[in-house]
Amino acid sequence: MAIMEVRKMEVSLDKIKELPLEELLGMAIKSEIEARKFYESFAEKIDIEPLKGKILWLASEEEKHEKMLRKLYSSMFPGKEVVFPKEHIGPELQPVAKELKGSQDVIDLIHWAMKAEEIAAQFYEKLMDIVEGEEKKRLMKSLSDMERGHYYMLRAEYELLLDWEMYSQMMHIGP
Amino acid sequence: MAIMEVRKMEVSLDKIKELPLEELLGMAIKSEIEARKFYESFAEKIDIEPLKGKILWLASEEEKHEKMLRKLYSSMFPGKEVVFPKEHIGPELQPVAKELKGSQDVIDLIHWAMKAEEIAAQFYEKLMDIVEGEEKKRLMKSLSDMERGHYYMLRAEYELLLDWEMYSQMMHIGP
Repeated sequence: MAIMEVRKMEVSLDKIKELPLEELLGMAIKSEIEARKFYESFAEKIDIEPLKGKILWLASEEEKHEKMLRKLYSSMFPGKEVVFPKEHIGPELQPVAKELKGSQDVIDLIHWAMKAEEIAAQFYEKLMDIVEGEEKKRLMKSLSDMERGHYYMLRAEYELLLDWEMYSQMMHIGP
Repeated sequence: MAIMEVRKMEVSLDKIKELPLEELLGMAIKSEIEARKFYESFAEKIDIEPLKGKILWLASEEEKHEKMLRKLYSSMFPGKEVVFPKEHIGPELQPVAKELKGSQDVIDLIHWAMKAEEIAAQFYEKLMDIVEGEEKKRLMKSLSDMERGHYYMLRAEYELLLDWEMYSQMMHIGP
């Protein structure tokens, strides 16, 4: 059974130009909160120290993004509460509730996170075209680059973990 | 005057296939050490806390890469001391000796670091084709992704700093 069940309320990246900016920012904030909770719960269940450290670092990054987006939101819609739409950017990352049974579970979760980060990077890139003003465009570009940085960081771990998987397989069939 | 003087002993990425692997690994280790020293000295001179934290994090990352590469080197050339060639991967990052006079100095240094990380990512990608064996190829791919992650992380900061620059300019001409 898959370690992660994915709910499908994914918004198509092509459709986001039709949605009001208020909802798009709400969607982005929701997605940063979920990513943080996902990484926090993931880190709790990892006993590989260097990887745990990196995942916790990612959690703290997403928290900073949430704060930046909330600041932007309240500057654009003063006094308004953030509305979280049902739609979702990319795969919805839910907190990791189950124990991780082996490296394959870790690899699967990293793979989901990579997908989520990749789509988040594309989402902010699209938002860059939608928001008005140099300052807001820069912020979106910066957020897009940050998520892309996370994507490559995760992909680097993914590669190393696949290697560990190979090691453990080799140990099973070894002399 | 530029905040950073760059010595030109840059090896062309197209030429690396002609060099022995031993030298290429020596070059990579040298470059990780220099990157770490650069980031450490840079962080010391930064008073913007979130940026300082990120630069220190990059320093610790490069230290880990150095260890990984030294392990690989001693497994491939047991008992041999690492030889550091004169040639260099990309722009040589020297420790930041001067005080930073303003955001433009920070922006310039980040720009150099971006260039160095980008070329490091390309260098490891090329090494991936040169090394033999799945395990070593994976390690090179992973290192390439890590440096690419750093590149995007720096680019994200770069964008935000350009914005701050704009802010400070606006303050000078503001009401």
